[in-house]
Amino acid sequence: MKSEFELIDYLKRKSLDSLKAHPKLQVGIGDDCAVISKDSKTDTVITSDLLIEGVDFRLEWMIAEHLGHKALAVSLSDIAAMGAKPVWAMLSIGLPAKIWKTNFVDEFYEGWFELARKFGVALIGGDVSKTPDKIVIDSIVGGEVKKGKAILRSGAKAGDLIFVTGSLGGAAAGLKLLEKGERFKKNSNKSIQNLLMRQLKPDPQTEIGQIIGENGLATAMIDLSDGLSSDLSHLCCASGVGARIFADKIPVNKNLKKLFPDALDFALNGGEDFELLFTVDPKKLLKFEKELTDFPVENVGEIAANPEIRISDSTATKILEPKGFRHF
Amino acid sequence: MKSEFELIDYLKRKSLDSLKAHPKLQVGIGDDCAVISKDSKTDTVITSDLLIEGVDFRLEWMIAEHLGHKALAVSLSDIAAMGAKPVWAMLSIGLPAKIWKTNFVDEFYEGWFELARKFGVALIGGDVSKTPDKIVIDSIVGGEVKKGKAILRSGAKAGDLIFVTGSLGGAAAGLKLLEKGERFKKNSNKSIQNLLMRQLKPDPQTEIGQIIGENGLATAMIDLSDGLSSDLSHLCCASGVGARIFADKIPVNKNLKKLFPDALDFALNGGEDFELLFTVDPKKLLKFEKELTDFPVENVGEIAANPEIRISDSTATKILEPKGFRHF
Repeated sequence: MKSEFELIDYLKRKSLDSLKAHPKLQVGIGDDCAVISKDSKTDTVITSDLLIEGVDFRLEWMIAEHLGHKALAVSLSDIAAMGAKPVWAMLSIGLPAKIWKTNFVDEFYEGWFELARKFGVALIGGDVSKTPDKIVIDSIVGGEVKKGKAILRSGAKAGDLIFVTGSLGGAAAGLKLLEKGERFKKNSNKSIQNLLMRQLKPDPQTEIGQIIGENGLATAMIDLSDGLSSDLSHLCCASGVGARIFADKIPVNKNLKKLFPDALDFALNGGEDFELLFTVDPKKLLKFEKELTDFPVENVGEIAANPEIRISDSTATKILEPKGFRHF
Repeated sequence: MKSEFELIDYLKRKSLDSLKAHPKLQVGIGDDCAVISKDSKTDTVITSDLLIEGVDFRLEWMIAEHLGHKALAVSLSDIAAMGAKPVWAMLSIGLPAKIWKTNFVDEFYEGWFELARKFGVALIGGDVSKTPDKIVIDSIVGGEVKKGKAILRSGAKAGDLIFVTGSLGGAAAGLKLLEKGERFKKNSNKSIQNLLMRQLKPDPQTEIGQIIGENGLATAMIDLSDGLSSDLSHLCCASGVGARIFADKIPVNKNLKKLFPDALDFALNGGEDFELLFTVDPKKLLKFEKELTDFPVENVGEIAANPEIRISDSTATKILEPKGFRHF
């Protein structure tokens, strides 16, 4: 295996045979969630996200409540990216004995349940295990969407407009600040605290995801977990298309712009913003604008037939290489 | 928190409110699987099992294929314990970079897919992550069972007969042999190899679990993952009953008896046999014997109204304390 994406492709092929025996398991490996037929009107979407201490988070950077929040938020983001409504969750957690003896577990679940209550998500199960010395968390969330209406990565067509929600780059800037020694403290520099919170306690786009799903507003959707350049590449690969985006349209986080000279680079290649990236058929633009009038969305470009991703600024057009996050 | 079972009780209480909002999420925390209403005829059961290197397995003890097999087997065992048929699976795996560079992943998935094919289980998703230095696996399996027919831990009544499948203690004896330095090698001592395989490559009781579920043969069921004394205690607690079992009825693994003088202790308190423990209403005994004629099952005792678990041998009757596996 060379990269984790090659492993995912390999598993996709390996699982094709088993999927043939289950015609109701519609979408397997390779999207934000798996899609399963629930009943005649509804499909179930399911996602699983590993969070590993020392790789995805560091205890010295965050309080346990924030980690509990983030563990659920990353999976809610995957559910939102399918246009679905989250319903239930399972949480598997492995802890070293030294952490078990502290208040960590209680505080972790407080953060988890606070976010779960906000979106009416029920905890239905999970597992508890001991680990030698690092915390590991697997967050599993199930959601529901109207039959056949889950929004996949693979539906984008040439001419579709590309949108992103919210602002980008803030979570990556927050990570950089944490690495430099900044910590979350109330009543300190507002810009720094905002960026740290983008990294430590991200908000999933659950409401807008559901509105897009219920109204069939997008042809394709993905959450921005690896970074815009990589996630747009995943969406274009799955759809067999390319894209052209415009640098000055990218909604770069304002606090990031204040503090970092290379803000656009964070917005293009920084992960974990957990915003949504989606494509809209221009014929649906009126309906789209009506339904999403209360939400911050930005048209950053357009899908192209030629399978290349290009980015233009006032002086030039260049190929945009996927430089976002990868584990391997 | 004092023990993992207290954490599970705490989560059960915490999740009760969220479950009220979802009347179709019938059984939450505390059984082998969660139960969700699928459609008018079917319920879905879901389980999640963490496997942590250095706690649940050691790489020097086993080949990657066996670990792939076991990762799926432990979850199939939970599905069997609900009387359900396994349908789909997700696998989240975290690997250190040094393991990623080897053939580990390919061999692991070979073992996983071989068992998945046997029971027609489709891989539909999961996650891949890097870890600092230990392998972590979270195995998630979904299954189906006739509406309202999932067999819970909580249905045992005084007078019900207690049965176990297969033989007990072999997996714990295998673990002891591994700790003593024995390794799996073909063409060596058959008894030792049998015990090692009980630990390294356990067989889930998928067929018998489904027969029990489809025919409504059991009033309560649990898989033997922690050990008979602990798992019987879990079942009795959930049902609000006690039990009396007979030492000479316990189907102690024959190879274990050959090699270890304290064989009964392994059979009572050793975990990971992944056999099934279930209770049968005496009125259903004829139907039960007819349906399960081809399977090795043993009547080891009877459910009692008094909430104590007693074990009798030819000389005395004693309280059976839960001495099986616990993480915390």
